[in-house]
Amino acid sequence: MKNMQHILFVFLIIQAIATDLFGQASVTVHHDRCVTFKVLGLYANSLYIEGLGNALGGKHFMNLSRDGIWEVTTPPIEPGFHYYQLVIDSVAVNFPGQPTYFGWGKETSGLEIPDDNLEFYLPHRTPHGDVSAKWYHSKTTNTIRKALIYTPPGYHVDLNLRFPVLYLQHGAGENEMAWVYQGKANFIMDNLISSGQAIPMIIVMDNGYAAIPGSENPERPSREDNDFEGLLLNDLIPVIDHNFRTIRDREYRALAGLSMGGAQAIRIGFSNLDLFGSIGVLSSYPGNFDVQSVYRAYDLNEELGLLWLGYGKEDKRYSKGLDFHHELRKEGIEHIWYECEGGHVWQVWRKHLYDLAKHLFK
Amino acid sequence: MKNMQHILFVFLIIQAIATDLFGQASVTVHHDRCVTFKVLGLYANSLYIEGLGNALGGKHFMNLSRDGIWEVTTPPIEPGFHYYQLVIDSVAVNFPGQPTYFGWGKETSGLEIPDDNLEFYLPHRTPHGDVSAKWYHSKTTNTIRKALIYTPPGYHVDLNLRFPVLYLQHGAGENEMAWVYQGKANFIMDNLISSGQAIPMIIVMDNGYAAIPGSENPERPSREDNDFEGLLLNDLIPVIDHNFRTIRDREYRALAGLSMGGAQAIRIGFSNLDLFGSIGVLSSYPGNFDVQSVYRAYDLNEELGLLWLGYGKEDKRYSKGLDFHHELRKEGIEHIWYECEGGHVWQVWRKHLYDLAKHLFK
Repeated sequence: MKNMQHILFVFLIIQAIATDLFGQASVTVHHDRCVTFKVLGLYANSLYIEGLGNALGGKHFMNLSRDGIWEVTTPPIEPGFHYYQLVIDSVAVNFPGQPTYFGWGKETSGLEIPDDNLEFYLPHRTPHGDVSAKWYHSKTTNTIRKALIYTPPGYHVDLNLRFPVLYLQHGAGENEMAWVYQGKANFIMDNLISSGQAIPMIIVMDNGYAAIPGSENPERPSREDNDFEGLLLNDLIPVIDHNFRTIRDREYRALAGLSMGGAQAIRIGFSNLDLFGSIGVLSSYPGNFDVQSVYRAYDLNEELGLLWLGYGKEDKRYSKGLDFHHELRKEGIEHIWYECEGGHVWQVWRKHLYDLAKHLFK
Repeated sequence: MKNMQHILFVFLIIQAIATDLFGQASVTVHHDRCVTFKVLGLYANSLYIEGLGNALGGKHFMNLSRDGIWEVTTPPIEPGFHYYQLVIDSVAVNFPGQPTYFGWGKETSGLEIPDDNLEFYLPHRTPHGDVSAKWYHSKTTNTIRKALIYTPPGYHVDLNLRFPVLYLQHGAGENEMAWVYQGKANFIMDNLISSGQAIPMIIVMDNGYAAIPGSENPERPSREDNDFEGLLLNDLIPVIDHNFRTIRDREYRALAGLSMGGAQAIRIGFSNLDLFGSIGVLSSYPGNFDVQSVYRAYDLNEELGLLWLGYGKEDKRYSKGLDFHHELRKEGIEHIWYECEGGHVWQVWRKHLYDLAKHLFK
């Protein structure tokens, strides 16, 4: 019996390879944005696909066909990038053979649903900038860390040019890779720069978690143990200014971030106006940071080249963003307010960067 | 009953988070190089860990404890990097929450077992080079491709310096990321360069699969559909020489690769001695490429700055490598022969690069 099962299993694997199930699993995004997931699993009892953050709309239970292949086709899924997982007999895993992205505090499956009407974040036949991984020792964390740096097209060709710098931060549970891999920041900038809509700039992306030595959880330190501000000011900016052809002037240095990174941009940006001339806040709000003291201490219209706020209208943080917007308006502080369809998702942040970068350093 | 199960399940998840099972799964490498794998899976029937390429020595079936946690501890595992998978009720997946690496034609789990006696591939408190992702359009494939480029420490500081270039290729089923993520090539070079053992050089890593337009399987083209030579000569070298401060001279341009990449280095290198002044062959051999015609046509001792061959003694390709070595010796062709313990594995290729790079461009 066991042997029969094995022969059948091998046969099914051969069949799977012969069809579209090379690697024993497949994901197919259809033109109508429905998605078919298939997994070969002869001895499994229950499989389902589950969106993380409700992106895919809950659980999609897979059905077992006679040939040992589990399969489900979802309803149409919203365009953009969505984290998800496969659950096999109660064990949550990443979908086999598919790329993963660091989110939810770990490598997590991600699904890209094309938007028929949007091409601004796709690679085109334009000049492309590079994304460099730079390893450096941080005194703040006493570890060797990695930052990603986008340099614009032509950076390596005319060595006399210097560029403004945007420090751009990810959200909770993500890391320095997110803006490139989930966000497509490099392609967004390539498209903006090659069409003359944005000034060529350097973008620096580091991990927003910077655990001080002795932290209990170095990967995800508590608020008290996280000194991202120290890292940014004392380690990262000096490393970048030393190694890249930056314009070392606050007017040409911006800080922006999404969600947790937006809160960091508010707190660190407004506390260090001698270093940052522009601030971008994506799907975030001041929280417990006392912005009123900043309004009292500075003429922000004088100090800030750009204050940019962006939100998705279906994001539960939208109303907090509106409050911030109204408060700034009441105080007479100039800023750009940008809102678009969508929730707390990467498709919104792609649109945010696309607009933010058009206004930066102008 | 269903509700009871759910309550129990939630309780177990809470328990898992409270212990070391954050993310519902964990991998612990012990000092004796035994590895404990744990997975929370209340409703699963059979789980095992399986090394790919026999690195972990076959299947390690996990045992279910009373609290819903599956667990196994392996015997001591050979130091180095090993691909592996988790099989849950017949479905092969990557281990939850762990990093993956592109190998076996897809994202695959990888396990790093430290070697107590080897530090040459670890990051140390030395200056670090960068690894840049460069996107470019290839005429050969008519696609936008990504190459990774290691630039040595200081590359961005003294803009008058130019550097030799090593083109370094991965093995079958891997991609341009492998030499950095599996191979630690950047840390190996940082250590060699900062200790004065290697000349500062640029290393270019691209995908060895370059499908010509119309290929049936663009990701893994057949031999006939794969024009990596055209890509390298007509697209990649010009892009690199245009965008990086290379020394544009065959004497300062080398080609090396492991396994499939080693076969490419032999075929493309020996066929284009006007472009490459040094060739490195890692765990590979000429196969059906006619090297005798090259011996007849060229004085290789004159043409080649370095011909370097490296093998693992437990690799089944070792004897083919020895044949190649003996043939070269018979023909009077100078070369370096390097052999070390180990099979067809990344730990061997790390050692290979460490030795190869010491001899290059000297």
